[in-house]
Amino acid sequence: MKIAVDAFGGDNAPFAVIEGCVKALKLYDGFEVILYGAESEILAELEKYEYDKSRVKTVNCTEIITCDEAPTVAVKRKKDSSMVRALEDVANGKADCIISAGSTGALLTGATLIIKRIKGIKRPALGTFLPNHNDGSVMLIDCGANTDCKPAYLLQFAVMADAYLKGVYNIKAPRIGLLNNGAESEKGNELTKATYKLLEESSLNFVGNIEARDILTDKCDVLVCDGFDGNIVLKHTEGLAHVMMSMLKKELMSKKTSKIGAALSKRAFRNFKRKLDYSEYGGAPLLGVNKTVIKAHGSSDAKAFASAINQAIKIFEGNVNHIIEQGIDDMVITGD
Amino acid sequence: MKIAVDAFGGDNAPFAVIEGCVKALKLYDGFEVILYGAESEILAELEKYEYDKSRVKTVNCTEIITCDEAPTVAVKRKKDSSMVRALEDVANGKADCIISAGSTGALLTGATLIIKRIKGIKRPALGTFLPNHNDGSVMLIDCGANTDCKPAYLLQFAVMADAYLKGVYNIKAPRIGLLNNGAESEKGNELTKATYKLLEESSLNFVGNIEARDILTDKCDVLVCDGFDGNIVLKHTEGLAHVMMSMLKKELMSKKTSKIGAALSKRAFRNFKRKLDYSEYGGAPLLGVNKTVIKAHGSSDAKAFASAINQAIKIFEGNVNHIIEQGIDDMVITGD
Repeated sequence: MKIAVDAFGGDNAPFAVIEGCVKALKLYDGFEVILYGAESEILAELEKYEYDKSRVKTVNCTEIITCDEAPTVAVKRKKDSSMVRALEDVANGKADCIISAGSTGALLTGATLIIKRIKGIKRPALGTFLPNHNDGSVMLIDCGANTDCKPAYLLQFAVMADAYLKGVYNIKAPRIGLLNNGAESEKGNELTKATYKLLEESSLNFVGNIEARDILTDKCDVLVCDGFDGNIVLKHTEGLAHVMMSMLKKELMSKKTSKIGAALSKRAFRNFKRKLDYSEYGGAPLLGVNKTVIKAHGSSDAKAFASAINQAIKIFEGNVNHIIEQGIDDMVITGD
Repeated sequence: MKIAVDAFGGDNAPFAVIEGCVKALKLYDGFEVILYGAESEILAELEKYEYDKSRVKTVNCTEIITCDEAPTVAVKRKKDSSMVRALEDVANGKADCIISAGSTGALLTGATLIIKRIKGIKRPALGTFLPNHNDGSVMLIDCGANTDCKPAYLLQFAVMADAYLKGVYNIKAPRIGLLNNGAESEKGNELTKATYKLLEESSLNFVGNIEARDILTDKCDVLVCDGFDGNIVLKHTEGLAHVMMSMLKKELMSKKTSKIGAALSKRAFRNFKRKLDYSEYGGAPLLGVNKTVIKAHGSSDAKAFASAINQAIKIFEGNVNHIIEQGIDDMVITGD
């Protein structure tokens, strides 16, 4: 298995990306890495580490796509960028999957234009994982690829996430929930009401509407929503966790006894923070395109990047795309 | 000022409601309370307290609207329910405002049907408050009254919240933010893109798009969104705070030193929890109807109910509805 890595995507590129690849090479077997970007810089960085050189290749690219560029324009114009070259090599079979911590918009657009959608898929979607209160996690899909959605898209998001959890985690019948403004079946806006019916009629293990207060309470394995709401849930989780920790810290520091308490509980705080840190889960898979595409978090460190590589291996070995194709074939989905 | 209180609405009715009224009578001046519901039970409950009897009246009602009834049907059929009778007395001028901790749907429907909308208002909306990291708060509107919205509704929500903050908190130019999936002006779904333009053209102090990660970081005083997303933000805040606290507790209890730490930090935890507890802020005002309507949280205790009464007084004295009328008059709003 060959993994194309956009070495110049992300806030900590190329350093964290390359360190993450080296880390992954030591931890996991059965794959090679192709690093895309300014070759001289990549090689200089690789010099710092001990690793199996036979498993690493480089491809020199002269351009970088930045996060403030318009995605479609960037993908079309910057033909020699690390991201586009990597996407093209995945499309033409020189690599099996791509990981990038670069511009989300460019990766989505690039993957759809260059790698192309799986037959029958209306819109590829981005999945991500949030921790739940039982030390497990819930896959949120779509977490930002499609702002305006139709019911048929959401049904397909469910089919794709179902395939992911079956292939990667070997879950037999993932519990599919629909993010809604009430648990009762008749609740919702136009989109979720219509989606409810489609999910109910499908062969998926649909467990009904999930209120936002139950996102993290292990009521479902997959939480389906449009990309606008997925973005809100994801970013509100980040923001609230951050604000809560700083409010709590302020409280703990305001009295002498609790200051001692805070010092004693330091490790617990750290462990807790790590649980919430979704970089632990690797990256966000873009589901619905013909190859494995993983969007690593922009601020990924080496560890997060190594997790993303591990995730790519699991998706590939779990035949996720094949299960998606079967799921789409089995389903009559109407609407555009 | 006369406050109509639905004594039989909410999980802890009539006990917490009546205790809350007595508490408020002691704390605040210049208002009377009219309690609607089974008179004998109300009087028996009142017997328990010392209070100024000249400031309390009761109106006997034989019915109660429950939370599992269809709102429109319940409001139309249960003419002698505590909620409908209270609404009618507000509509006909026997009282100036209504507070209920009962069915949100029935209160919204009942207020719109019986008290009626302010002239020019397309959809009344429910506002609520979330704490921010600077010990302040942000008003989230609409937090659940309207699941499917048009841009013109959202503009009016902003006008109403602006009036509320001007009237109740004397904020000169409340910062109005639009909940969106990116901070840049071009971001959004169809609804938020169109709303952005309306807000930009308005005379409001529009501060632009607010990403969900910044909901609690004091970037705005009012956060405008449709009732579907408002519900998600509100309930996810509740859910996440709960899950985070229990995850943290588990972490703290897993080691001896942090167990001692947790014991020492108990008070800090309690204070922190209180900050997140939005019952502190009173209830959720329903803005856009001809009188003051407050939806108290279903699980309101006496303290939360007393806060809601204090809030009703401030809305009334702050002439919020008058400011809303002016705001709507000043604005040419098209669309239905």
